[in-house]
Amino acid sequence: MTLTPYDIDLPKTAANHQALTPLSFLKRAASVFPDRPAVIHGRTRFTYREFAGRCARLGSALKAHGIVRGDTVATLLPNTPAQLECHYGVPMTGAVVNAINYRLSAQEIAFILDHGEAKIFIADREFGALANAALKLCKSKPLVLGIDDPEHDGPGEAVGTQSYEDFIAGGDPAYAGETIGDEWDAIALNYTSGTTGNPKGVVFHHRGAYLLSLGNAITAAMGQHPVYLWTLPMFHCNGWCFTWTISAVAGTHVCLRKTEAARIYAAIRDAGVTHMCGAPVVMNMIVNAPDEMKTQTGRTIEFYTAAAPPPAAVLQKMDAAGFRVTHLYGLTETYGPSTINAWNEDWDKLEAAERARLKARQGVRYVVLEELAVMDPETMQPVPKDGETMGEVFFRGNVVMKGYLKNPKATGEAFAGGWFHSGDLGVWDEDGYIRLKDRSKDIIISGGENISSSEVEDVLYRHPAVFEAAVVGRPDEQWGEIAIAFVNLKPGASATEQELIDYVRSQIAKYKAPKTIVFGDLPKTSTGKVQKFKLRDQAKPIGI
Amino acid sequence: MTLTPYDIDLPKTAANHQALTPLSFLKRAASVFPDRPAVIHGRTRFTYREFAGRCARLGSALKAHGIVRGDTVATLLPNTPAQLECHYGVPMTGAVVNAINYRLSAQEIAFILDHGEAKIFIADREFGALANAALKLCKSKPLVLGIDDPEHDGPGEAVGTQSYEDFIAGGDPAYAGETIGDEWDAIALNYTSGTTGNPKGVVFHHRGAYLLSLGNAITAAMGQHPVYLWTLPMFHCNGWCFTWTISAVAGTHVCLRKTEAARIYAAIRDAGVTHMCGAPVVMNMIVNAPDEMKTQTGRTIEFYTAAAPPPAAVLQKMDAAGFRVTHLYGLTETYGPSTINAWNEDWDKLEAAERARLKARQGVRYVVLEELAVMDPETMQPVPKDGETMGEVFFRGNVVMKGYLKNPKATGEAFAGGWFHSGDLGVWDEDGYIRLKDRSKDIIISGGENISSSEVEDVLYRHPAVFEAAVVGRPDEQWGEIAIAFVNLKPGASATEQELIDYVRSQIAKYKAPKTIVFGDLPKTSTGKVQKFKLRDQAKPIGI
Repeated sequence: MTLTPYDIDLPKTAANHQALTPLSFLKRAASVFPDRPAVIHGRTRFTYREFAGRCARLGSALKAHGIVRGDTVATLLPNTPAQLECHYGVPMTGAVVNAINYRLSAQEIAFILDHGEAKIFIADREFGALANAALKLCKSKPLVLGIDDPEHDGPGEAVGTQSYEDFIAGGDPAYAGETIGDEWDAIALNYTSGTTGNPKGVVFHHRGAYLLSLGNAITAAMGQHPVYLWTLPMFHCNGWCFTWTISAVAGTHVCLRKTEAARIYAAIRDAGVTHMCGAPVVMNMIVNAPDEMKTQTGRTIEFYTAAAPPPAAVLQKMDAAGFRVTHLYGLTETYGPSTINAWNEDWDKLEAAERARLKARQGVRYVVLEELAVMDPETMQPVPKDGETMGEVFFRGNVVMKGYLKNPKATGEAFAGGWFHSGDLGVWDEDGYIRLKDRSKDIIISGGENISSSEVEDVLYRHPAVFEAAVVGRPDEQWGEIAIAFVNLKPGASATEQELIDYVRSQIAKYKAPKTIVFGDLPKTSTGKVQKFKLRDQAKPIGI
Repeated sequence: MTLTPYDIDLPKTAANHQALTPLSFLKRAASVFPDRPAVIHGRTRFTYREFAGRCARLGSALKAHGIVRGDTVATLLPNTPAQLECHYGVPMTGAVVNAINYRLSAQEIAFILDHGEAKIFIADREFGALANAALKLCKSKPLVLGIDDPEHDGPGEAVGTQSYEDFIAGGDPAYAGETIGDEWDAIALNYTSGTTGNPKGVVFHHRGAYLLSLGNAITAAMGQHPVYLWTLPMFHCNGWCFTWTISAVAGTHVCLRKTEAARIYAAIRDAGVTHMCGAPVVMNMIVNAPDEMKTQTGRTIEFYTAAAPPPAAVLQKMDAAGFRVTHLYGLTETYGPSTINAWNEDWDKLEAAERARLKARQGVRYVVLEELAVMDPETMQPVPKDGETMGEVFFRGNVVMKGYLKNPKATGEAFAGGWFHSGDLGVWDEDGYIRLKDRSKDIIISGGENISSSEVEDVLYRHPAVFEAAVVGRPDEQWGEIAIAFVNLKPGASATEQELIDYVRSQIAKYKAPKTIVFGDLPKTSTGKVQKFKLRDQAKPIGI
């Protein structure tokens, strides 16, 4: 490279170069809007000054406990202030926040605690039994902090040797945090359900989290001071990075321990919610709530959905209930959503069915994602934009993960050819919008959770009576999809539907278990491969 | 540094790391919204497909001409499509766009062409005489491309050996641009009027331009598809980076060769303008237009102002005319505005005078600026937030310039201690908002242009009759400030007011010349320093 005058005497200095990190959003919000409401959680209210003070207390207490750059702090928490605080207090020390899905089994959580090498594990007593079971199964012995949230009035089990509140009480609310020296440093660890074997640990870095957070604000055109309702679990890609986006626009987090229609409408009424996210199952809740529960606000509430295309009937009902639905798409590996079904106002004039068909598309790249393409995975050449030629969806850019933790083989495969291989199959419509056709990894998305069909098949195959098993998704109005298993028993063996379902539930997360078992021979190709498309046809409810 | 599992086997690859560049915004807009209007210029309309095609043609034609990474392409253009195209087509090749202020003198422009080593110089025939005069004075011999804009019906002079349109006609509309290998590479060069001697070349890089562009979109809460009217010169910090912001939100640029009330209201009426920027002089134009010219849109138009605090009377009139005014502040060295007078809705209830006082403050950092502080420049310690203790305003972060071109001494001084020294003096109010009190560099801001008082003094001192000279700003309702010179003539020498004003106009840009000359002795300190604060008092119009 030839040196030019622009390359000489113009170095990076502390004045003009700093690591990009979403932690700077909270610093700004706390200094510019210290008295604005940052967090609402039942009867609890934190201003930005208070919220930032609690995050700093957590960070300094972690530091005092010896937590340093590159350590992992795991959480098993519902959408509470503590979970939000972990998204700032943990990375302030240079450590990595690992928010674990509380719908996983104790075995899965134990694997994650061991694989992620968590030094600290923070759990809510609602999931105390699960946490304690996981801790018994895992090899590592993290410091365990328990949370007994006064907003939780249900059952639970005490967990840990120290309470989270006691732990942070000794911290310093003025702790400024360690300097993030390199924006490529890890900020979060999120486990994705693998197609085979153990889950993979997706590593996010500060740079990507910063950019996706800003991308959300621009994509969602949030303006300043949105009131954001936590109907999306924060353990899903750090709440699609909205945990950080909200600080960038000095908005209010409205926490929600349980995603239920009554709580949602109460928050809309009492807190003045303007924005929320969730899987189609949340939309079902909203539109199917009893009429007397529905709050008429006269405002349009922005609803961002992903995981499965929003069905036409639900879209119409959401519209009537005062929600504007925007369809996003992404994977844990892309920090959550990184494509958007950017709406063209010309489409407003179309028939409802046609509008729903257009809205069901996964769309176009976020402005912070550099490239999105549908390509032939063999040749890595883009497929024609004809709405018909299938290809794999590929992502490239700064909001693609750092890689899989301690798994260079999987990282290398995922990034082969300089693109992230999503594993999702789709087409490119003529207008450049992508539309998923099938998922090559056979992921079933049920209630916003990914279920790997091969993982469930693996479990079924372990049952002594099972000869062959194949699991597919079945469209479902409430859950988006549900898992259906087709099972061929061993000659002479016997098992009931309930017995097999219970067996799966005893082995992996309960939500992954099939809802229905169909017994019989499996259709196969001449080479012996199960013809899943035939099973999917068979699984479809009548009329779809 | 201890290596952790997060540091191992997780390298940057083409899949997960790309240089940040605002060029990606246009690529996205052109692929996602090819048929949306990108540019409106009188009778000319370009969709995003057409606009991106023209930028690509320009880039490929430049490349064919031998332009490569680190070359400079200078422009002397009003707010036309060509000026916008240069903001994309030039950096696409890796080169640097240098948009020159057409209000400068031929001598100043010649200095810039030589100092910036422009390989190509693109000029509009409206400024043909100025361009030709500058080319005669400068040592370098760039290729000169002339533009004869059909929207210009005033006088002018042919310039260059080839027309811009002919030049780009041979280009390739499908040219994808060179890969920006490093986001630290320069994208733009903007000359700032120095306090002494020659102007300094402020270098912007791709990373900063990307971030400030997104910062504008978030700060301005622009939403998608704004209609942006170009009442701010694009040669001012690349139009405060809105040249790039508008592509990030797929908005429409409404070009404007001349900032005049009739043209502004026509654009508001015909193009549906939603956003605009400008110095207070533009607000004066808007509110003082004849009533029959004023378009009633029923919409609120967002107006972003900087350069001088908006006066209370003007704010009230802007409000009545349907504009919401937001006050920004920054310097060329911070990519244009990087602070915002973030409005607190509680202040809506206050009296107009108090609201104006609050709005006159320079405010708080943009979300993409890492730090803003008022500090004692000796100790580099923050001054108390008491609204009284004076300090210098310092900036730090990724939207601070790369440095001054070929001027390591000035760069080193500007960045001493790891902060950018703005040279502006101010206080920190109790709520953390900054308020400028005085400008240590004695910059007078008149009609949105910076005038360095010491530069004007230098010129006056060169006049044979002048013994002493001091220049200060005087508040002015139309221009924000105007320059007033206090001159003490040599014993026995004589000169008239008009003679001195004409002399200054013959030496430097005409707008820098004082409007009034006051003759007489200058007040001095015991050490012989001119007491400018006394002159400022004397210069003040009655009643201020």
